[in-house]
Amino acid sequence: MAEAKGVAEAERVAKHIILAKFKEEVSAEEIQQLIKGYANLVNLIPPMKSFRWGTDAGIENLTEGYTHVFESTFETTQGIAEYVAHPAHIEYSNLLAPALEKVLAMDYQSNIVQL
Amino acid sequence: MAEAKGVAEAERVAKHIILAKFKEEVSAEEIQQLIKGYANLVNLIPPMKSFRWGTDAGIENLTEGYTHVFESTFETTQGIAEYVAHPAHIEYSNLLAPALEKVLAMDYQSNIVQL
Repeated sequence: MAEAKGVAEAERVAKHIILAKFKEEVSAEEIQQLIKGYANLVNLIPPMKSFRWGTDAGIENLTEGYTHVFESTFETTQGIAEYVAHPAHIEYSNLLAPALEKVLAMDYQSNIVQL
Repeated sequence: MAEAKGVAEAERVAKHIILAKFKEEVSAEEIQQLIKGYANLVNLIPPMKSFRWGTDAGIENLTEGYTHVFESTFETTQGIAEYVAHPAHIEYSNLLAPALEKVLAMDYQSNIVQL
């Protein structure tokens, strides 16, 4: 375990992934503002290290209706729990949630496989 | 756009994310073997640059029943399309699919927000 920990230390990353579908009445401009607000949480919540996002590229047809992905990076899953409980996250969630038709979240330690 | 492209070039990354739930009868050992097989696709399919995985940490209760995340990284979404069509991917999918109760895939250009 000591060796594995040494290897993993530099690569240690926990991820918080949201899949979302916006309600039809939410405009593209409103979506852009909500994505900027999400990205700005990096400036407000210390354990949140980075944010990226994307929309499905339509290569496969396995999205279950979700159209957007929001990826946030943390050092540990404990950091994700702090983020979830942070007032800035709660305030932002109260803006985002009413704009969503459906949402899914996964929080996980992101592991590398040693083959 | 030229400037934005310059900034983005170094960070250019396309992601292929699978959310999965294994069938109850699939053992932990079989799951480990399937995850190793997934990771080994990096060695077989040139546009696939890296692979990471994780299981939900149970911080929120928004997983819609999915338990595992598989994250693959590519330089472009075109690379994902090549991966999806690659014989090694098709062969692996034919092993993985029967072990899954449910599965969801998102393929996207992963973007940074300039605030």
